[in-house]
Amino acid sequence: MGEVSKRSGWSFRIWDAWYVLCTSRELRAKPRALRLMDLPLVVFRDAHGKPGALLDRCAHRNAPLSAGRVRADTLECPYHGWQFDCGGACRHVPGLRDGAELPSRRVPSHATCEQDGYVWVYGRASVEPQTEPFRLPAIGRPGYTTVQRVVDSRAGVFAVVENALDVPHTAFVHRGLFRGSGKVNTIRAIVTRTQTGVQAEYVDEPRPRGLAARILSPGGGVVTHYDRFFLPTIAQVEYALGADTHFLVTALCTPIDDTSTRLFATVTFRTRLPGWLIKPVLNPVAMRIFQQDSAILRLQSQTIERFGGEHFASTEIDLLGPQILRMMRLVQEGKPAHDGKEWRREVEFRA
Amino acid sequence: MGEVSKRSGWSFRIWDAWYVLCTSRELRAKPRALRLMDLPLVVFRDAHGKPGALLDRCAHRNAPLSAGRVRADTLECPYHGWQFDCGGACRHVPGLRDGAELPSRRVPSHATCEQDGYVWVYGRASVEPQTEPFRLPAIGRPGYTTVQRVVDSRAGVFAVVENALDVPHTAFVHRGLFRGSGKVNTIRAIVTRTQTGVQAEYVDEPRPRGLAARILSPGGGVVTHYDRFFLPTIAQVEYALGADTHFLVTALCTPIDDTSTRLFATVTFRTRLPGWLIKPVLNPVAMRIFQQDSAILRLQSQTIERFGGEHFASTEIDLLGPQILRMMRLVQEGKPAHDGKEWRREVEFRA
Amino acid sequence: MGEVSKRSGWSFRIWDAWYVLCTSRELRAKPRALRLMDLPLVVFRDAHGKPGALLDRCAHRNAPLSAGRVRADTLECPYHGWQFDCGGACRHVPGLRDGAELPSRRVPSHATCEQDGYVWVYGRASVEPQTEPFRLPAIGRPGYTTVQRVVDSRAGVFAVVENALDVPHTAFVHRGLFRGSGKVNTIRAIVTRTQTGVQAEYVDEPRPRGLAARILSPGGGVVTHYDRFFLPTIAQVEYALGADTHFLVTALCTPIDDTSTRLFATVTFRTRLPGWLIKPVLNPVAMRIFQQDSAILRLQSQTIERFGGEHFASTEIDLLGPQILRMMRLVQEGKPAHDGKEWRREVEFRA
Repeated sequence: MGEVSKRSGWSFRIWDAWYVLCTSRELRAKPRALRLMDLPLVVFRDAHGKPGALLDRCAHRNAPLSAGRVRADTLECPYHGWQFDCGGACRHVPGLRDGAELPSRRVPSHATCEQDGYVWVYGRASVEPQTEPFRLPAIGRPGYTTVQRVVDSRAGVFAVVENALDVPHTAFVHRGLFRGSGKVNTIRAIVTRTQTGVQAEYVDEPRPRGLAARILSPGGGVVTHYDRFFLPTIAQVEYALGADTHFLVTALCTPIDDTSTRLFATVTFRTRLPGWLIKPVLNPVAMRIFQQDSAILRLQSQTIERFGGEHFASTEIDLLGPQILRMMRLVQEGKPAHDGKEWRREVEFRA
Repeated sequence: MGEVSKRSGWSFRIWDAWYVLCTSRELRAKPRALRLMDLPLVVFRDAHGKPGALLDRCAHRNAPLSAGRVRADTLECPYHGWQFDCGGACRHVPGLRDGAELPSRRVPSHATCEQDGYVWVYGRASVEPQTEPFRLPAIGRPGYTTVQRVVDSRAGVFAVVENALDVPHTAFVHRGLFRGSGKVNTIRAIVTRTQTGVQAEYVDEPRPRGLAARILSPGGGVVTHYDRFFLPTIAQVEYALGADTHFLVTALCTPIDDTSTRLFATVTFRTRLPGWLIKPVLNPVAMRIFQQDSAILRLQSQTIERFGGEHFASTEIDLLGPQILRMMRLVQEGKPAHDGKEWRREVEFRA
Repeated sequence: MGEVSKRSGWSFRIWDAWYVLCTSRELRAKPRALRLMDLPLVVFRDAHGKPGALLDRCAHRNAPLSAGRVRADTLECPYHGWQFDCGGACRHVPGLRDGAELPSRRVPSHATCEQDGYVWVYGRASVEPQTEPFRLPAIGRPGYTTVQRVVDSRAGVFAVVENALDVPHTAFVHRGLFRGSGKVNTIRAIVTRTQTGVQAEYVDEPRPRGLAARILSPGGGVVTHYDRFFLPTIAQVEYALGADTHFLVTALCTPIDDTSTRLFATVTFRTRLPGWLIKPVLNPVAMRIFQQDSAILRLQSQTIERFGGEHFASTEIDLLGPQILRMMRLVQEGKPAHDGKEWRREVEFRA
């Protein structure tokens, strides 16, 4: 039982990491204005289709480059037509006489990468990343179906990640959909820290009751259930019922600003029934869950803002939240997320 | 002739006092989110109907308790179902195994009281008040009729209280309703300080002209008229015409934030005509007066905000305003409102 | 090639200068609330039609005087009826007994002047200006027609003035209307500083192509073209085609606040065709140009605000902007705008 934080306005800022800015499909010929940790960026595809990401401010008179257009391998400012390449260098200034020197001022540029249907951007400008974006597991594995959805929350990224991996709130926020309608069981969870995050494994979890469970697995079976956090802001739930039913939900969470988070959810699953049959049933249930979480996260975020910062308390059944916040802070302060020693905790709770 | 104040953003903050948060009728089964001096509170009735008031922030993850529901003698958070009693202690955490210690963190709680049709809340959290709420006079006295109304003003509480007790503005803001339509008289006022406020008594005040006066007292008679301020934010006008007509208007003013005030007005009166005949005539006149005051107070408040604070000047006919502001400030600074010596001033003005 | 500015939130504040607050026509019997460099002012005509300008805040309880009414040669506050003359002195307090001293507190007043169809107000309060407002040239000259328009921009005054005098943006923001549709020429510009501003003269400028040019001068001829800046915030374009066609566009730019500018444009012209024939053609073209500039200025302003200030770079073809900003800053710092030495620069650019 302790305090998670007592502060006025902690801001998530982990610059040395990859974040999804949009889906591959969303990025077409027109440049897009997107924010990352409150930084205005323009993301665009050059004439070869390669994505680029620049600070969304022309070096000349500060017009937003996102209101301009792509010209060959450059982005052209809408005000005076200055052209910048993917590295942020100015390549053309209309009107300048032949032989005149081009402006040396660059627009800060960010490394980009396209993977698993997403456009990833590195948080820190003007550096060559030493890491690669997180690889989504099981995509394209035979017998599996994948669904991707984008959900916006008016809440900070820590609140969104904690919520995505939190079990106890489901009985209240998702009353009737998950739990809360049957008899109460004691479940054991084993929490372990890893080099890149933290994981909860649930032992002896009974087959759940409720609408969602009945749809997902009419036949029953042993439950395997992991909730995982990966730095900087990735939440993953792995859930299996017996040998046939396997769900992997990965939420890539992008911190837009202190009170807005965009969640790129990928659900990859296999059931006894074919995917095309499950998808139309799964979709409205998943969207209802996302809406309920969005609503409570918005209320929580408004209250935190009203008081000028968070003031949290936790109990032993807040399995992952305090661990996640601790790791986010260590990394933000430039310290290692894990000291290398094994760390393991067993907790019993009732659900 | 002097300056009342020259400051940037004085905020009324008298914590050790009772304030009305809502009418008894407004508080039903659903908890209500209300603010007092910018503090977000949740007011609710437990299963026995007793009102409670807590800071509107769950001790766990800061969700607003006002979005939750009452469960027996506790209020349940909408996010994870933590339950808090009227004293702010956590009484239940769903999911915690039997025998686990409940969180010790309390939600700050405020003393409450129900009286004269209002729910009163004490401003300072976690204390046992040494005083009782202000008693409304004459309610239920034989032959008297009582009407209660709630009026919101977009203005600070001092501006609202001063306005409620100010005579000169009536000729401009309420032109035609009160004064401003007849011949001008010289009136004498005697202003005296008391232990708990300040009072103006009007001597030789002629029977007023205008629509309101003609409705209230067709028969005429000697005028008795007192304007009174009671700490912290109560304005009272007592007005009698002869032996038969007697009006007591008490405005309990609740500071919501620096630029919003909720005024709980109680009008108790007796006239030669029966109350049920006066009420339907009185009501539209009273509402018109409140609307006119609201409009000018809003303009005043916007101008003060635009300039970052008040910059007032006064003359001798600003009878009560400067006295009220002085007392509010003394109390706010922890000093006695009155030094015990008799203080009396006579002022002549034309109305 | 250099940096114009790198700062967080530079604010234009040149108090010792005349600004247009509204057109003569806009100021009738009702007082008007208008802002100048973020200062709330009330402008009104007294009973003789003479304009007056006061700080828009009653000296008594800070109600806005702009919500009051004119009474003979004074402005009456809507709250308690205090009356102030054009010099800001309180001349009457309703209710004060005969012989009581009037309040000495004045409302700050500004010198006013009516000229060329505009109401001018001096920026600094309570001083006698040593200068006169800028005289619009050619108004009323035989054979000339004058059109006046008011355009609001959501941008700071420097950005608006620079935009009004900038040539290179026309090929992008006004693509098709001015330039950008024909072959590219090299033009020479001679930039000179004066005591009161800076001027660019264009030498060997070819007759422009595009819709506007074809309408304005079907016959062709030698181009004479000057872009001029006059302190504090006046932009002027003079353009002649041969002996018959002569346009003078003067933009009197009023800084309302850091991100709003009101532009009072006066177009005075003479062509081979009569003015009544040109006006209905000129008007939609001019309004389209103003709208396009407003749109890009708004985008620029929003980006600057988002980043907390400007971060500009310039090239040699930013002929006037850096000169204008330099002069505005010198004057704002109380230094002379020009050191008296001749300053002249020749620049070649392609248009």
